[in-house]
Amino acid sequence: MFGFSKKWNPDGKHVYITGGSTGLGLSLAIILTKKGAHVSIVARNQGRIDKALAQLEEVRASPSQLLKGYSHSLDTAAASTAALEEVCAAHGGEAPDAVFACAGASKPMFFVEMTEEDLVNGMTAGYWVQAWTAWAAAKMMAKQEKKGRIALVSSTLGYMSFLGWASYSPAKHALRGLADTLQSELMLYGISLHIFFPPTMFTPGYDEENKTKPQIVKDIESADDGLTADQAALALYKGVESGQAHITGDLITSLFRASTRGATPRNNWFLEGIFDMVAYIATPIWRSSVDKRVATHRTEHREYLTTKGFFS
Amino acid sequence: MFGFSKKWNPDGKHVYITGGSTGLGLSLAIILTKKGAHVSIVARNQGRIDKALAQLEEVRASPSQLLKGYSHSLDTAAASTAALEEVCAAHGGEAPDAVFACAGASKPMFFVEMTEEDLVNGMTAGYWVQAWTAWAAAKMMAKQEKKGRIALVSSTLGYMSFLGWASYSPAKHALRGLADTLQSELMLYGISLHIFFPPTMFTPGYDEENKTKPQIVKDIESADDGLTADQAALALYKGVESGQAHITGDLITSLFRASTRGATPRNNWFLEGIFDMVAYIATPIWRSSVDKRVATHRTEHREYLTTKGFFS
Repeated sequence: MFGFSKKWNPDGKHVYITGGSTGLGLSLAIILTKKGAHVSIVARNQGRIDKALAQLEEVRASPSQLLKGYSHSLDTAAASTAALEEVCAAHGGEAPDAVFACAGASKPMFFVEMTEEDLVNGMTAGYWVQAWTAWAAAKMMAKQEKKGRIALVSSTLGYMSFLGWASYSPAKHALRGLADTLQSELMLYGISLHIFFPPTMFTPGYDEENKTKPQIVKDIESADDGLTADQAALALYKGVESGQAHITGDLITSLFRASTRGATPRNNWFLEGIFDMVAYIATPIWRSSVDKRVATHRTEHREYLTTKGFFS
Repeated sequence: MFGFSKKWNPDGKHVYITGGSTGLGLSLAIILTKKGAHVSIVARNQGRIDKALAQLEEVRASPSQLLKGYSHSLDTAAASTAALEEVCAAHGGEAPDAVFACAGASKPMFFVEMTEEDLVNGMTAGYWVQAWTAWAAAKMMAKQEKKGRIALVSSTLGYMSFLGWASYSPAKHALRGLADTLQSELMLYGISLHIFFPPTMFTPGYDEENKTKPQIVKDIESADDGLTADQAALALYKGVESGQAHITGDLITSLFRASTRGATPRNNWFLEGIFDMVAYIATPIWRSSVDKRVATHRTEHREYLTTKGFFS
């Protein structure tokens, strides 16, 4: 907390990254490969995995680094466990030194238009794909008494929310709940738990979510500057390197981190006091402007629902 | 926010309460029956529903009040929708004026001992049983253009967490994410969204969770005074009556509410500033004492896992 602790050095360590073929996961894989880590990525699409591995090969720090990719779904406990086991087989079955659960997706929509499937899939893609990896990894590390690191990826929407995110924000809040639980519980095994809260990231996943995102949600987000995948990956890496429990990489999310800290270990007492004071004034102003925008949107939204046959 | 808005009066209104046969839900049903509301409760066990209805009959304010109970599971979207529809049938199919989703349960355990089923059931009992009710109710209210109220029930563990709660705290955080989303989104329909964060409640559910709760979790919680179901129900009722977005009924949870407020609408600017200042100092002290306790528990925990065959 006071910067006295030794920084994590991934050189020669085995790092497992889910969602490592694209976006944040790929950018992180590149950073860790450059740092000399043995990097294993898991993703679904074999073509994208091959392309990602080619990129990693270009930046390898030494010929002895193992750079591997595997195609797995991570939607279930069994699938995530199988993925972890295959990843570890290339390392004699030893648990990874660090696990970065970067897999995830979102599909913003209006709540009353969501189907059961939209809500269930939102929890799977936003929460379970990471929770199952954390569960499989924590059990393996604890059994092997490996003092590893596990990092989850939430979102600014794990600290706050607004219209459109009813299938996604609950999942990202759930990750925070899991991380805060495990940050305490995995101390029993010397395993450290980190969670990253990125803002809008300009990744393939962002293009995907924009396909269903209502216009009013886009309008509200337009104030958000966002990060590239590389910027976000660097913030995540630096946060884990210095042992932060909650990691943020942009000012807005840092304000939310400071103002939703509760009992979460703090990164910097002085700075977070300042952030919190700013947030104390700024978030209600932001909130009030969003509320006004939503209230103003009522008539247009009613017309939209009418054309969609909602009332008939 | 400044106390100028008219208080909600449930007299003559139709109020639907899930989990209404016991604990918080039953206490709330009694309060609302006394206030003259038409009360519909849903729970699983018909015997307990009958007993609860007998208690409600004793406190009815007028002979015209409809006091009804129905046996339903609420685990799935279809089941929650069926429950809501049956409840509304006695009111000509009209959406309730207020919905209180009080159903829920928890099963604290060590994470590495949890099965896939424990984690999935934790999300169902802690999140989905309420989310499906909110989803069915929001759609019905929006379609009928009924400006109703929906209240969810999270927990102090929806603001923070510590060891033992890996299947519960994520679900309670997810409810916060859903509530904060819907608090914004349901403004489109004039529906208000409330969420209650009770601490330990001395209810039948508490006795149930204590059956699996590790001793160290009990020790950490022993500092928490807790509320009776009646005290908690009164706090929830008063919060909804005065239109609060986030409702708390005890000092500790109020400190967490103030220190995890983010962009959530505040109940009282002055008081919450004070709470937040107290929490800024108090939560790290609490945190540090819990961390020490967990670290001290390592050896004993390792022995416990060994006797359970975890390492073999």
